[in-house]
Amino acid sequence: MPKISVRGLRMPESPIRKLVPFAENAKKRGAEVIHLNIGQPDIKTPDVALKAIRNFKPDVVAYSHSAGDKSYREGLAKYYQKLGIHVDHTNILITTGGSEALMMTLNSVMDEGDEVIIPEPFYANYNGFLASAGIIVKPITSSIESGFSLPPISEFEKLITPKTKAILICNPGNPTGYLYTQDELNSLKEIVLKHDLFLISDEVYREFTYDGKKHISVLELEDLDQNTVLIDSVSKRYSMCGARVGFMVTKNRELLDTALKFAQARLSPPTIGQVAGEAALNTPDSYFSEVIEEYVERRNVLIEGLNKIDGVICPKPTGAFYCIAQLPVDDADKFAQWLLEEYSWNNKTIMVAPAQGFYSTPEIGKQQIRIAYVLNTTDLKDAIKVLDGALKVYPGKVNTNKKTPHNINTY
Amino acid sequence: MPKISVRGLRMPESPIRKLVPFAENAKKRGAEVIHLNIGQPDIKTPDVALKAIRNFKPDVVAYSHSAGDKSYREGLAKYYQKLGIHVDHTNILITTGGSEALMMTLNSVMDEGDEVIIPEPFYANYNGFLASAGIIVKPITSSIESGFSLPPISEFEKLITPKTKAILICNPGNPTGYLYTQDELNSLKEIVLKHDLFLISDEVYREFTYDGKKHISVLELEDLDQNTVLIDSVSKRYSMCGARVGFMVTKNRELLDTALKFAQARLSPPTIGQVAGEAALNTPDSYFSEVIEEYVERRNVLIEGLNKIDGVICPKPTGAFYCIAQLPVDDADKFAQWLLEEYSWNNKTIMVAPAQGFYSTPEIGKQQIRIAYVLNTTDLKDAIKVLDGALKVYPGKVNTNKKTPHNINTY
Repeated sequence: MPKISVRGLRMPESPIRKLVPFAENAKKRGAEVIHLNIGQPDIKTPDVALKAIRNFKPDVVAYSHSAGDKSYREGLAKYYQKLGIHVDHTNILITTGGSEALMMTLNSVMDEGDEVIIPEPFYANYNGFLASAGIIVKPITSSIESGFSLPPISEFEKLITPKTKAILICNPGNPTGYLYTQDELNSLKEIVLKHDLFLISDEVYREFTYDGKKHISVLELEDLDQNTVLIDSVSKRYSMCGARVGFMVTKNRELLDTALKFAQARLSPPTIGQVAGEAALNTPDSYFSEVIEEYVERRNVLIEGLNKIDGVICPKPTGAFYCIAQLPVDDADKFAQWLLEEYSWNNKTIMVAPAQGFYSTPEIGKQQIRIAYVLNTTDLKDAIKVLDGALKVYPGKVNTNKKTPHNINTY
Repeated sequence: MPKISVRGLRMPESPIRKLVPFAENAKKRGAEVIHLNIGQPDIKTPDVALKAIRNFKPDVVAYSHSAGDKSYREGLAKYYQKLGIHVDHTNILITTGGSEALMMTLNSVMDEGDEVIIPEPFYANYNGFLASAGIIVKPITSSIESGFSLPPISEFEKLITPKTKAILICNPGNPTGYLYTQDELNSLKEIVLKHDLFLISDEVYREFTYDGKKHISVLELEDLDQNTVLIDSVSKRYSMCGARVGFMVTKNRELLDTALKFAQARLSPPTIGQVAGEAALNTPDSYFSEVIEEYVERRNVLIEGLNKIDGVICPKPTGAFYCIAQLPVDDADKFAQWLLEEYSWNNKTIMVAPAQGFYSTPEIGKQQIRIAYVLNTTDLKDAIKVLDGALKVYPGKVNTNKKTPHNINTY
């Protein structure tokens, strides 16, 4: 039998994959599983986008331009300009989701064996993209005590080698919900200029910022046009994950031309997704204010509830719709499995994502889980009751000297 | 300024890209450009597929399963079973177009520096996928005199090294239109088993076979389950290139599980494309018989016309909707540019794809062009008149001792 490739073997599995059969078993024995592990929002796709799909007129579902429909790119440029990001349609490559935008960027700026620095915990699928491209992750741990703010820039300096080609951030962060400040972005700018690196910023949760905080894009940083790349997507913004439409945006012409060669090889991004995405540009502001109001309420219910549980620490996120919670358990992996196998409250249990999959450094985050608050508040309240009850009886419970991190705002 | 990656630099440009500005200039000076260079069929997408898009019911455009919708995979298994390909839904991975199916296959079976043998001329975008994955192409030239049939298996033997991991074929062929026989596939089977290689077969043009010839899939070859991978797509079959839906099909469980890890990293293939694709499984047989009748008529007009031109040789394709024609010119690249810059007949000219981009061996195919017959017969007849007239006055014309290849059926 012919052999699988080394890169195929080293591709990581999804961190929650091994929990899936346990969740299925829990359902088989009649328990309701509240899914705190998924990133698929329950929010409705905007009507304008759904209508555009249903009004699809052409009688051939044809390829688009490899860089995406020009009219859509022009519309996107206006969207970015309104946010203070000064680009035109020639700075934008429409891709098959943010995933492809990131893959094309990574392949355009890094070779096998090159290194990228990423603050951890980070979006677990980055590991997949990086492994498939043979790129080495140099993680830099951000702490739950600081609310996952940017680690000191001196820590970045320590990791830089001749192989370092880029720094990758997610802002606001999945899985942390942390929103980088102007000062933090400025310090990244300095190190990037000093070492001539790319700064790749995944900003797919841009619209989801709370408590009056404003998102700042890396493309707004002055004198950094040749170094910055914005990764974007319609998936979360308009709750249309299945459209598979994303964007790579950069003012570095050589980089965009290089990525376009990868884009030409795969011919075109999805046509109907682009039709929906272009229509979604006309989503009324009221849609976002309602969605944000909903997420803020969910967040408040969740974070307040979590921090009231004995031994649980959870910084209050100011963006995206995820949080990382630290639990008084021996091992979040085991605990997650135990929840599905052994525990229920009112015949309900929860499925959570153990946070180790979001760390690249071994053994870090062993007591942490990621929760996505893409469920209604009734389910979230039940989920907290499940967690509270479970921690009272879980055999692997450990005592923690719970401290509220003093420099972040928890309840 | 930070540097572009080596793999980014080595990514090839589309072979017709440099002709695009000349085509635009031709249009600006008022000439009508007949596009013989494109692979986007003008055939209508089946009504059942268009209706499914317009009847899209969910109010959230959500992710599908990373392997694609289960009901669609079950429907696809039935489609394959009808063709004599005995698979079930667990043998199928739904991908973002045939491009992604091929990329995931290549990444799962080959590492950087590994080698794949491909009969040339081959689909130019293979170069892009292979370059981006760092895989080395070992081309084996098939000749226009043989109608692009499979080169002797002894030629394959000569190329095999410890780095050889797979043979990649396209059947029926783009750009050749050649359909492999049972004997040819059997000889590939032998060498693949002898050297423990993968046999990857791009069969996206399966439905387009002519003159009563029947397509044979590599998945129909006995005792080869662990070695064969089928690459497939809805793009050409249902004229829905923009759906971006393809398939990787294999009975090698380890290989499919590996590819699934790449699939999980990018989350899901396009949801609406899958809805259209699943509906397209119910396309009536009459759709295909009408389309094939249309392609046969176009092929006959084109091939007869081409072979009547002094010095032009074009084998008659029995599959797909492309042909490679040999012209009495010094350099097809120069000739293609000259057609757009200097020549018109009745204010019309043609854009053709120089065939060198479809060869990996340097200097081969310099006198050849690829033509896609995805245009109506009126346009094709005009195109032949343009070509005939152009060859009478082209300054770089060379004399050829035109011979009709005796072992293939031309007009």
